[in-house]
Amino acid sequence: MNQVGESSVPSGTLEVVPLGGLGEFGMNMMAISWEDTTLLVDAGVMFPDPDHLGVDLIIPDLSYLERRGSRVQALLLTHGHEDHIGAVPYVMPLFEGPVFGTPLTLALVEPKLAEHRVPAAGRLRPVGPGDLVRVGPFEIEFIRVTHSIPGCVALAITTPLGTVLHTGDFKIDQTPIDGVPFDLPRFSQLGDAGLLALFSDSTNVDRRGFTGTELDVVEAFEEIFTSTTGKLVVALFSSSLYRVQVLVDLAAQFDRKVAFIGRSLIQNTEIAQRLGFLRIPAGLQVRDSDVPGLASQDVLCLVTGSQGEPQAALSRIAIDDHRYISVGPDDRVVLSARAIPGNEKAIARTMSHLARRGAEVITSDMKHVHVSGHGSAEELKLVLALTRPQHFIPVHGEYRQLSLHARLAGRVLAGRTPEVNVLLAQDGDQIHFDAAGARLAGRVPVGRTLIDSTRTGEVIDATLRDRRHVAGDGIVVVVAAIARQTGLLAGTPEIVARGFVLEDDDAGALFREAALVATECIMAASVEERADEGLMGERLRVEMRRFFKKRSGRRPLVLPVLMEV
Amino acid sequence: MNQVGESSVPSGTLEVVPLGGLGEFGMNMMAISWEDTTLLVDAGVMFPDPDHLGVDLIIPDLSYLERRGSRVQALLLTHGHEDHIGAVPYVMPLFEGPVFGTPLTLALVEPKLAEHRVPAAGRLRPVGPGDLVRVGPFEIEFIRVTHSIPGCVALAITTPLGTVLHTGDFKIDQTPIDGVPFDLPRFSQLGDAGLLALFSDSTNVDRRGFTGTELDVVEAFEEIFTSTTGKLVVALFSSSLYRVQVLVDLAAQFDRKVAFIGRSLIQNTEIAQRLGFLRIPAGLQVRDSDVPGLASQDVLCLVTGSQGEPQAALSRIAIDDHRYISVGPDDRVVLSARAIPGNEKAIARTMSHLARRGAEVITSDMKHVHVSGHGSAEELKLVLALTRPQHFIPVHGEYRQLSLHARLAGRVLAGRTPEVNVLLAQDGDQIHFDAAGARLAGRVPVGRTLIDSTRTGEVIDATLRDRRHVAGDGIVVVVAAIARQTGLLAGTPEIVARGFVLEDDDAGALFREAALVATECIMAASVEERADEGLMGERLRVEMRRFFKKRSGRRPLVLPVLMEV
Repeated sequence: MNQVGESSVPSGTLEVVPLGGLGEFGMNMMAISWEDTTLLVDAGVMFPDPDHLGVDLIIPDLSYLERRGSRVQALLLTHGHEDHIGAVPYVMPLFEGPVFGTPLTLALVEPKLAEHRVPAAGRLRPVGPGDLVRVGPFEIEFIRVTHSIPGCVALAITTPLGTVLHTGDFKIDQTPIDGVPFDLPRFSQLGDAGLLALFSDSTNVDRRGFTGTELDVVEAFEEIFTSTTGKLVVALFSSSLYRVQVLVDLAAQFDRKVAFIGRSLIQNTEIAQRLGFLRIPAGLQVRDSDVPGLASQDVLCLVTGSQGEPQAALSRIAIDDHRYISVGPDDRVVLSARAIPGNEKAIARTMSHLARRGAEVITSDMKHVHVSGHGSAEELKLVLALTRPQHFIPVHGEYRQLSLHARLAGRVLAGRTPEVNVLLAQDGDQIHFDAAGARLAGRVPVGRTLIDSTRTGEVIDATLRDRRHVAGDGIVVVVAAIARQTGLLAGTPEIVARGFVLEDDDAGALFREAALVATECIMAASVEERADEGLMGERLRVEMRRFFKKRSGRRPLVLPVLMEV
Repeated sequence: MNQVGESSVPSGTLEVVPLGGLGEFGMNMMAISWEDTTLLVDAGVMFPDPDHLGVDLIIPDLSYLERRGSRVQALLLTHGHEDHIGAVPYVMPLFEGPVFGTPLTLALVEPKLAEHRVPAAGRLRPVGPGDLVRVGPFEIEFIRVTHSIPGCVALAITTPLGTVLHTGDFKIDQTPIDGVPFDLPRFSQLGDAGLLALFSDSTNVDRRGFTGTELDVVEAFEEIFTSTTGKLVVALFSSSLYRVQVLVDLAAQFDRKVAFIGRSLIQNTEIAQRLGFLRIPAGLQVRDSDVPGLASQDVLCLVTGSQGEPQAALSRIAIDDHRYISVGPDDRVVLSARAIPGNEKAIARTMSHLARRGAEVITSDMKHVHVSGHGSAEELKLVLALTRPQHFIPVHGEYRQLSLHARLAGRVLAGRTPEVNVLLAQDGDQIHFDAAGARLAGRVPVGRTLIDSTRTGEVIDATLRDRRHVAGDGIVVVVAAIARQTGLLAGTPEIVARGFVLEDDDAGALFREAALVATECIMAASVEERADEGLMGERLRVEMRRFFKKRSGRRPLVLPVLMEV
């Protein structure tokens, strides 16, 4: 690799601006600029709380990028998780250059672009570990790291001032499922050559020890496959492709057919199979509609919905409302995922519904059925010790994780000469590197843009709606009281609206009709669904949005308030 | 102890009805009846989610007790946690008999009665382990169990049909802080004599292994006391009196003064000291107002707010809004509690605020600073194996915990003759025991009553308000948009109301004024507070309730909706 700028330090400023992911989990995005060239690292989304106001997705405020305009010359993707690629369809129309990523990452981006009708037109450029690409004054090297999905890379970006290393998301899995090791030697070489700055993942800095390998789940699952006499249902993130491989291999070993249930899981496993990242023996995979025709002990269902999302497969199965999949005594449901903070209650509700069906629910508290994709404290220390940067900036985490990682770095790199400079930056901070060193030099506007995509059954009709315009379409609050004892509605639902510009007469009639629609929606639900605030609220929200869209052409923010009395 | 009903089985029915805590965490309450005598075991509350609609407390529906009327002859309390005693002030006026509990439990009940102006008038009867009391056809023996608070007992209730054992909450701590061991031999003797039924705590059935002793935290805290150079702040449940003793002892050892911060912690530690359950060396304790005058390294603050509650001490300290306590670099904050599901996001926000102050935040993921008060799977198995009941009914947990505990019991007691009968009951199920065995015989009305106590600063003005009457006082939704970038209000807050019966002209003026009050409330908050949906929402809720109460005499349900734009 060419070492640029080794002779004398040029008189310019390298500006790095985190636009998302520093001060929150999710929506990771960072801009790196030298003069008139801006590189973008990742473009992710954040998921709202399950009960969060009808918002489906959250992406970073893009006004900084809009202002950089034609100076934005490339988007670099570290890996294919939603919190790193979910905002690509919103970002790509804002610039003209290429999007670099590994083949799997780009394949996961493609259907998003199609869904949003964003033309790719030769802009998606596959790269692999060891590849070098040049963009203006930058040279970017892609370095293999391990995480919970194949095709992850760190980025070594050589700038006129020196090389900066962005780890992306990682853990150090010394025995990865696909056999391709973390390129630790390259990290060490970069340290030898002198690293201007390290930007490193802080997600699990508050966990002691070493996260460990994906292989660690095999033992627990072997025991579960051995002892389960009925159907086996495993809920996981649809992007956990290594986990899917482990489970497919076990299914083959234990003579169970595998069905993928849930749109995103079907899509991701199709892509991974096509690219050779998921190997399924011939005849092993069946469709969801085949499951009712198979004996329970011959089935493994991999399903979406590990976060208790009301519309996902697991929630439908839990209230016995799935077309093909049901569970009962002798069946086992394994939750092979962590709870994303904020989802704990929805997950607990889903698990209790499953228990009511008679199924046994196994969580990672009970057996070792999940391992994180992010490195714990010891892995973070190892990366610091190998790379020995001049400047260290923790990324990916809430402020507490970032500050813990800063402390950790201070301890690991203590006593170095020159002393390491730890910069605790947050979204919007302008980090400036120049001949004199590095500092936080100012702030740019950052924020969140809330996306509300109206869903109708299987069809995804995504609509970008900035909540700044909420006053335009208004807000509708639907208050319904449900008697806990009987599951019946206590009185007519109340409809409260604001900023919904209609003639008064029309409004009265519309709201009376809306109350009827809400009543019907609630009474059409099963007693179990009615008693579940999360499920019922989501159903009511979808129905009411559809109603107001149809009758008024507006898309008010619908806020269901369910009270148990 | 007299063995009643040993000769021939009498021809009557023992009815046990769980009224709360079976199918949810919290609000534990159970009625046990023989002919015209009903015993009540515990009377607890449940805490709502932090963002739950202005509800402060949730208690079981008391209509079953109202209908039992004078047949309710005693209330038996297993221990002094809120989820077992919080509803005592609401229950005591419904019957006339005594309330039995250990001295600490009763002392924790007393201030609640005073607050609600419920006369105790000799009804509180202290009992201790080994004591027997008779109530109608029942004889009750109190048996020492260990948990996270002193003064916990299990109840062995001898009925005309045989003895039933209710464990209360427990773990098996073989080295309890107060030196009084769990009376396992007595559990075994009850098993020898033949136990009609066991009702056992299911809270931690999904955890492997043994929970272990409270003493386990000492090592981690010793390390923390040794290495902390500034102030040490430990957030814990105000009822974790063993934990308080451990920390007080360490403070004495490491020469730090101890300040208790937060109303409930001050009250509980005063009670525990008075009764001899908490020993504080003379001169060690200081007041919160003394803290600013002490050097940081000489201070240990024990504080409330481990759940991120917006009004509690830790949240105020986190946004630098506490009158006497502030934290900065070199200071450490330890979260010595688990997250109650639903509170994770509020806790994460609080921790990030503390990190912004420069303090290091230590959680139980990082060091062993918390140990649960509830027994894990091995402890539950041990109790089953010692007591060998004819019938087993899991209590205290969501449906999933109850069903897991039922499975566990099936495995532990398999092969016994006669086979153990496991009954998976939920709130409202009438469990009938008679000469023919035991079964779920029907249902009684159960549910939840939501309590809304209007708080004004330090004054607690508790008002029982059943949300069934929400139509009477109406609902007010306050929608405010706050710009994330600037922390400023984006436009005037919208006030949306329903069921708020006023003359139209009045309403218009009132709502305009309300919008002004909301604006003032938001702009009077610090930028940090404004950016925190939980803190700002709670403050707005309190202010708006106060405004509507003052101006209209009504107490509408105030629902703040804060949108970040």
